[in-house]
Amino acid sequence: MSHATPDNLVCPQTAHFSAPLELQSGGTLPDWDLVYETHGTLNADASNAILVCHALSGNHHIAGYHHPQDKKPGWWDNMIGVGKPIDTRKFFVVGVNNLGGCHGSTGPSSINPATGKAWGAQFPMVTVIDWTHAQAQLADRLGIRQFAAIIGGSLGGMQALQWSITYPDRLRHCLVIAAAPYLTAQNIAFNDVARQAILTDPDFHDGNYYAFGSTPRRGLRLARMLGHITYLSDDAMGSKFGRVLRHGSFAYHHEVEFEIESYLRYQGDKFAETFDANTYLLMTKALDYFDPAQHAESLAAALGPARASFLVISFTTDWRFAPERSREIVRALLDNGRDVSYAEIESTHGHDAFLMPHAHYHALIRAYMDRINL
Amino acid sequence: MSHATPDNLVCPQTAHFSAPLELQSGGTLPDWDLVYETHGTLNADASNAILVCHALSGNHHIAGYHHPQDKKPGWWDNMIGVGKPIDTRKFFVVGVNNLGGCHGSTGPSSINPATGKAWGAQFPMVTVIDWTHAQAQLADRLGIRQFAAIIGGSLGGMQALQWSITYPDRLRHCLVIAAAPYLTAQNIAFNDVARQAILTDPDFHDGNYYAFGSTPRRGLRLARMLGHITYLSDDAMGSKFGRVLRHGSFAYHHEVEFEIESYLRYQGDKFAETFDANTYLLMTKALDYFDPAQHAESLAAALGPARASFLVISFTTDWRFAPERSREIVRALLDNGRDVSYAEIESTHGHDAFLMPHAHYHALIRAYMDRINL
Repeated sequence: MSHATPDNLVCPQTAHFSAPLELQSGGTLPDWDLVYETHGTLNADASNAILVCHALSGNHHIAGYHHPQDKKPGWWDNMIGVGKPIDTRKFFVVGVNNLGGCHGSTGPSSINPATGKAWGAQFPMVTVIDWTHAQAQLADRLGIRQFAAIIGGSLGGMQALQWSITYPDRLRHCLVIAAAPYLTAQNIAFNDVARQAILTDPDFHDGNYYAFGSTPRRGLRLARMLGHITYLSDDAMGSKFGRVLRHGSFAYHHEVEFEIESYLRYQGDKFAETFDANTYLLMTKALDYFDPAQHAESLAAALGPARASFLVISFTTDWRFAPERSREIVRALLDNGRDVSYAEIESTHGHDAFLMPHAHYHALIRAYMDRINL
Repeated sequence: MSHATPDNLVCPQTAHFSAPLELQSGGTLPDWDLVYETHGTLNADASNAILVCHALSGNHHIAGYHHPQDKKPGWWDNMIGVGKPIDTRKFFVVGVNNLGGCHGSTGPSSINPATGKAWGAQFPMVTVIDWTHAQAQLADRLGIRQFAAIIGGSLGGMQALQWSITYPDRLRHCLVIAAAPYLTAQNIAFNDVARQAILTDPDFHDGNYYAFGSTPRRGLRLARMLGHITYLSDDAMGSKFGRVLRHGSFAYHHEVEFEIESYLRYQGDKFAETFDANTYLLMTKALDYFDPAQHAESLAAALGPARASFLVISFTTDWRFAPERSREIVRALLDNGRDVSYAEIESTHGHDAFLMPHAHYHALIRAYMDRINL
């Protein structure tokens, strides 16, 4: 059953940009689209705009429903809406699909105007910095000179952080949730296994699988199964699945024996049906490349330009981006004398906690958002 | 250069068993071989025998060299030999390749006498309990009624533990290193991703790839890459590789950017050339199935029959089988009034620490082995 009502229907829109976008990789997008959706109303002086940045497999559909028959709302519907922590009666909230995505913004499955065929492997690498530039152009288009806040979790949190460096005067508040200032070797290693699963799938065809009418389903499925393990905590998996058997006793075969196997394979299958493999590759590369301090003396030096106030949040059982990673960000911001609030939320849900309607977490966001002056 | 000398050359031997072995899965091996090697000399009353059980990808080659030109010795050469913690001047040390293996013991790549072809997918599932039964027959063959000690790390530690339950009067000491009393949902999940990588590789041919002259190299490579991440600690990966780039700056492509990617892919490639995929599947399933307490009231109840003295060792940064998993074993043994020593070794090397020549760890094993009465 859908919980869609006339009040929570939202219609995605597409902004077309015809000026070429120069990318950090050296590539160029000759012209490009961003698909986005908005919730609430932009006030007269455009001081109440919020940008919500999505994570690896997210998109612009942050809340509400696109169609009356949709079974599931946008991915952060528990956070954004009337009376919710990010209250759309106060704020004008923008969700935008990143460049390279597969939900409407220009990406590898889009048509390359130069060839009339899908970009495929020819689509250039995109980085978090590129995304901030593209999003800034969308903000210009929407008449938003300065966001009241830019908010994101995981890869979205990295985008919010990057905004505070790239466009310090275009946001007053920056909410960085379950993020990290860069990926560790272990983080990169997990990403690389996921990518190798896709790249070595015979149906990948060097990224041009669209032309073959195929899709590297096996590789994408493995990538997602692996990803899921890193999103959940060992404890959460233990309490949800433990060693519960599918059929009560061992069958000694390679079909599902344990419920956890069933869950993971299902998640993998579902994802492989709906997500674009080239986009998955790009998003994981963007994660790897993210490192504001790469050419700076330190993270603190890299964050020197930032002017926003910050709320940084981590979750105790998140082992993908553990609390210590958030504390690195906090320390670097404090070294710059920035206004920083930091909370480490007790949660059993691992990295996925940032998507959950955890009471303390939501209360914290609500209180922070309530205090924002327009 | 090889460090092989006339004194450290060892010759593997094969024991053939012609009586069928009934397996826990309900399957039967009509006749079967175990390949093994021995170090030191069995004393007159056969009271100085040690059984060393191997882990997932290990084998019978525990120490020394098989050929004068071998570059690398057996996998536990730092632990076993003259003057080493398991001193072959005192002990007669036996290494044996598990059934289902791919290094000489009967396994999926062996010829099925019923068909004259490789067993392939027809090879029955084998469990840790099956291994103890097979190893006990080898002990009979070697004239060993009771082992002075049975020793193993990881999956090998589980075998040692199982021996203490299945054949309580056939071992006086049991050394359980970097092990766990059962796999958690997260452990099983990692195994399942690895297995799915192999099972869905088009070159797997339902396990009968031998007949096709192919091997599911891509799947096995992914499985090993993933395995490697879980063997190393986040810290160890960080200090060894960090974010060090292969070519000094980003190239924005899918070839190697970071050294960690190079390392993992190399490990995966090397393994995929030498290990049998069906064996890999079987070994991970044996891990999943291992659960002495499955049909008991508790782990303590399951360990009720054990009579050995125990040394249990864990490593602080091992997140595959964390110290807490070893403490579960220790508590259950103490509940039975068993003689247990437990050490939690400070190490940065994660699960792999059990293979490393860590001074404290080796001193501990040495002291324990020295105290064993013959």
